[in-house]
Amino acid sequence: MAMQKFLLTGTGGQGLILAAIMLAEAGIYAGQNVAQSQSYGPEARGGASRAEVIIGDEDIYYPKVERPDFVLTLSQEAYKKYGLHLDEEAILIVDDTQVTEVKPRSKNFYSLPITKAVRAHFGSEQSANVLALGVVASISGYLSMDNVLQSVKHRAPKGTTEQNIKALEIGWKMGLKARENQNNKHSQNEGDES
Amino acid sequence: MAMQKFLLTGTGGQGLILAAIMLAEAGIYAGQNVAQSQSYGPEARGGASRAEVIIGDEDIYYPKVERPDFVLTLSQEAYKKYGLHLDEEAILIVDDTQVTEVKPRSKNFYSLPITKAVRAHFGSEQSANVLALGVVASISGYLSMDNVLQSVKHRAPKGTTEQNIKALEIGWKMGLKARENQNNKHSQNEGDES
Repeated sequence: MAMQKFLLTGTGGQGLILAAIMLAEAGIYAGQNVAQSQSYGPEARGGASRAEVIIGDEDIYYPKVERPDFVLTLSQEAYKKYGLHLDEEAILIVDDTQVTEVKPRSKNFYSLPITKAVRAHFGSEQSANVLALGVVASISGYLSMDNVLQSVKHRAPKGTTEQNIKALEIGWKMGLKARENQNNKHSQNEGDES
Repeated sequence: MAMQKFLLTGTGGQGLILAAIMLAEAGIYAGQNVAQSQSYGPEARGGASRAEVIIGDEDIYYPKVERPDFVLTLSQEAYKKYGLHLDEEAILIVDDTQVTEVKPRSKNFYSLPITKAVRAHFGSEQSANVLALGVVASISGYLSMDNVLQSVKHRAPKGTTEQNIKALEIGWKMGLKARENQNNKHSQNEGDES
């Protein structure tokens, strides 16, 4: 699997550091090397927050994510900062409630109802981070549901385990379905071209 | 204050990632730039865990701690791995219950009853991470109690806030007293030499 680099971005208070730690631990359970970090500069006080995870079977010498493979974005401001200048191959996942102004992107783009789903199921946005984690992990295809479940159980704050397991499952399904839809769309396009 | 690098080491389950995140956030509240990270290699599955925090008023380009200024060690194994080859100027803080075999170190060494205090006050080791955070932060002298308190309140798991505030206060006092004792010892030694 070489090295997979994830960037989870949004605003403070959305629980993205915790989601990143869960993602990192899932990588450990999968027997990989992992680095997880967050940097806060002056801009951290402005709004956009970012947490990074690198998972791979090689040694990780430089733990910062410079060219991410997967970017999750849960706020318009974070989108502006981290979602606009990505490699074509990078997969961008945005929340369709929080990120409404997006530059068209031909492929590797998912706008998904993360916030809506979490509100519909739990009546608040409390587990949006774990639902989003499920989306990212399942779209990436690099981790098993079992490994992510194990880390969610381990790291969920007391009293929230049940809800977070549910959120993970909803997010996991959402990600799988979105990937399937995108694959179908691509094979149709390829069909058109032939 | 330039750049201060902290290494929090121990075993998985001691809550040192959370302590590192609290320390990082205290740095943000203090208006500093901060990077916080953890790396897990194959050795992570063996036992010794480490979490890193860099706090400073400069931009942080490389977020890994290579030559720490402060090292906290809550297990014998982590001590062997991270406590033995430090610069003379690095300050090493160990728990006197968990780390019993230590190589003599002429200065900058604190062996403190972190586990004992947390057991005596709370009947379990649950807030050892936050008590230790108080010790490290107060010995470092780089952060105000107010800033650390703010991050502990923000990051303490639900239902544990009161206990963790208490743990922080106990650790803070323990660190201040230890530093005072060491300063006195040094001035005595200097007196001896003159």
